[in-house]
Amino acid sequence: MKPITTLVTIVAATASFSLYKATPAGAEETMEISPDESRPADEGSADHFSGNVSVKPLFNPNAVRTFSSAEVTFTPCARTAWHTHPAGQTLIVTTGTGWIQQWGGQKQSIKPGDVIWTPPGVKHWHGATDSSAMTHIAIQDSVDGKPVDWLEHVTDEQYLQNS
Amino acid sequence: MKPITTLVTIVAATASFSLYKATPAGAEETMEISPDESRPADEGSADHFSGNVSVKPLFNPNAVRTFSSAEVTFTPCARTAWHTHPAGQTLIVTTGTGWIQQWGGQKQSIKPGDVIWTPPGVKHWHGATDSSAMTHIAIQDSVDGKPVDWLEHVTDEQYLQNS
Repeated sequence: MKPITTLVTIVAATASFSLYKATPAGAEETMEISPDESRPADEGSADHFSGNVSVKPLFNPNAVRTFSSAEVTFTPCARTAWHTHPAGQTLIVTTGTGWIQQWGGQKQSIKPGDVIWTPPGVKHWHGATDSSAMTHIAIQDSVDGKPVDWLEHVTDEQYLQNS
Repeated sequence: MKPITTLVTIVAATASFSLYKATPAGAEETMEISPDESRPADEGSADHFSGNVSVKPLFNPNAVRTFSSAEVTFTPCARTAWHTHPAGQTLIVTTGTGWIQQWGGQKQSIKPGDVIWTPPGVKHWHGATDSSAMTHIAIQDSVDGKPVDWLEHVTDEQYLQNS
């Protein structure tokens, strides 16, 4: 998610004195359509993911909107590393079947239409199951321009626990 | 979108003194999975939509998250009324082909993967085309608990202009 993180950092730094969500003076008032093909997917970094992961940027913060979003597709057995979100994260599962686990908790199955809220600071991972791909839309705010804090990889033993 | 609007109002009123996005004292630190089947779709109100529209709630604001989201499906010819969003709105098209138009602008086609940002106060409508259904995910913040201000219906003449 490097490109998004970088953009988030820039935008958040620029907008860091704006405490309220309102129309800033001089904000443009034209609808913006971002075509699908203008935002190609990137391979998820091996530093932050295991297996084949595709990260498609959806939108970044702007002068009004504080949150960002990406669509992430995990092939079977692929998953994030353990991580936390300083401002929390919302996931909307769109296709396939996945697993998600909070540190110290049970691994849980997630399916299309499920929505997951991970509160700030909660250590967790998410990804595909070992037999099915999974795609979710991820939406998150940032704290000081940072939407995520990456930790260690999820080992195969952790990943396959209670399967 | 009445159930969401009501919930947004309640939550926003409760949280109206929280200016910063951080973990409030006593916030729960457990991941929350909202199963798809726990949020049945509602029919879009005839006051705010034309044609057959299905509104499936995805998530409401909580103690940390300020924005809400719903998945909206329009059958061919169905569309919103003209409306504005006090804090803007982001749409992610997920299936089908749709139309979107800003007041005074040209009607534009939107397709899966397209992301649309409508700034605060911009009068517009969105919906299916006359020959294809369209589904989008809508994400919006609120101002004083209000995510949308509804206006008059889009007439057939306005809807079919330049088709």
